[in-house]
Amino acid sequence: MTKGELFAEIQKKSSFLCVGLDPDLDKIPTHLKTEKDPIFSFCKAIIEETADFAVAYKPNIAFFEALGPRGWESLQKVVEIIPKEIFTIADAKRGDIGNTSKLYAKAFFEQMNFDSVTVAPYMGADSVTPFLEFEDKWVILLALTSNAGSMDFQLIRDENGKPLYQSVLEKSQEWGSPENLMYVVGATRGELIGEVRKIAPENFFLVPGVGAQGGSLADVAKYGMNSSCGLLVNSSRGIIYASDGKDFAKAARQEAKKLQLEMESFLELYL
Amino acid sequence: MTKGELFAEIQKKSSFLCVGLDPDLDKIPTHLKTEKDPIFSFCKAIIEETADFAVAYKPNIAFFEALGPRGWESLQKVVEIIPKEIFTIADAKRGDIGNTSKLYAKAFFEQMNFDSVTVAPYMGADSVTPFLEFEDKWVILLALTSNAGSMDFQLIRDENGKPLYQSVLEKSQEWGSPENLMYVVGATRGELIGEVRKIAPENFFLVPGVGAQGGSLADVAKYGMNSSCGLLVNSSRGIIYASDGKDFAKAARQEAKKLQLEMESFLELYL
Repeated sequence: MTKGELFAEIQKKSSFLCVGLDPDLDKIPTHLKTEKDPIFSFCKAIIEETADFAVAYKPNIAFFEALGPRGWESLQKVVEIIPKEIFTIADAKRGDIGNTSKLYAKAFFEQMNFDSVTVAPYMGADSVTPFLEFEDKWVILLALTSNAGSMDFQLIRDENGKPLYQSVLEKSQEWGSPENLMYVVGATRGELIGEVRKIAPENFFLVPGVGAQGGSLADVAKYGMNSSCGLLVNSSRGIIYASDGKDFAKAARQEAKKLQLEMESFLELYL
Repeated sequence: MTKGELFAEIQKKSSFLCVGLDPDLDKIPTHLKTEKDPIFSFCKAIIEETADFAVAYKPNIAFFEALGPRGWESLQKVVEIIPKEIFTIADAKRGDIGNTSKLYAKAFFEQMNFDSVTVAPYMGADSVTPFLEFEDKWVILLALTSNAGSMDFQLIRDENGKPLYQSVLEKSQEWGSPENLMYVVGATRGELIGEVRKIAPENFFLVPGVGAQGGSLADVAKYGMNSSCGLLVNSSRGIIYASDGKDFAKAARQEAKKLQLEMESFLELYL
């Protein structure tokens, strides 16, 4: 998918909502557990009810991988039923030496046909660039994450006072462009999103941490939006586990719609 | 596996050789391609012929993942046939927020029964500690990798002149102990292995980069060995692709034996 196609979808739906698919066998509604493929049935119902409001879906690969080979089969089926105009993100946090990263890229872009994959930057250029060589596919590079551990290394300042996440942003812009490189920028530090936006004015940001992790959508929109929106704000648990009863998909729809309406107001305000 | 059990195996075999299993359908011998599961057949033959000289096997998960669900089935079969006294490493470079890392840990430690998994440090404490909560299982944390891209971020110096990889070494020792935490330390910079040894005197190092990537085994042994050996030196391509004919497993055996004999001399010299 191109940046233009993604922005068109954002405008059409007045939404920059990414729905995170973290299907946990311990959390999905009980009545689904007798299905042949409970994980797939759960994701399918969520996708059907939220597709009107979402511009992206983000399966968290760990939740599928933890189930072994049959988890990978469920994942393939999930990716196949996501409508083609909706952006897909393999949240996999991969990254290895060049020949190995190339295989991960093949796994997610060719085997699975995802539009994008999240990548960890620690191993540098040759761990990231193999993912950038696929046409209309995207790297979403970890820059500033939303978890407590992001303080351990990402904020370490170099000899010139520059924090590590800024070095990641600056260096990686030599490898890709706003047409194939996005960044993970956590919502839990609203003011820092503005700092990141200065360094990467044109790139899309995938923003986790709104909702369960405490980030503010208003701050994200205020400090992060650019002229192509430039934001995909993720919500996982708040949507997919809105109810654990038979109404789970309808409840997910309501939560997704609520976020979309908020997003619509911010798009009107800032775009 | 405990540290004591690993060291006992090293002493028994006079070896600290880790054989990297990177089974590439484009590189394995032609006659295997008609087998039902060529990847498994290839790895099985390699394991059978090199088990006398190896104290660890390191399947590179990308090579299996690139084949989809059937790749995961091959991987499970490979792990199952590795003799129990030989240490197993899932070279997966995983790392995510806490609840997600916990699922990756379950995938590799419970679903697959690996002894250890390689983990990327960028997301900090809560991305690493869930892997450390499994008894007799190990984290092998990326510290200083052997690829060219390791220069991009790992060597950035902080305000006090300390490079990032040293912060990773120091901080992570608050999370784990030499009984459950090893480090990836590349062989391509022999002199730096001595620096890492000073910071982490008791931890095992997994050392890639000897052979195809140009590192020197003599330097690794000289600068890196401690009183429990403390080294697992990996060779992948140099062993498993020593021949692409019907003699591939015998050729792998010869290469593994050659490395073991070199290692034996260094163990006699330094241990």
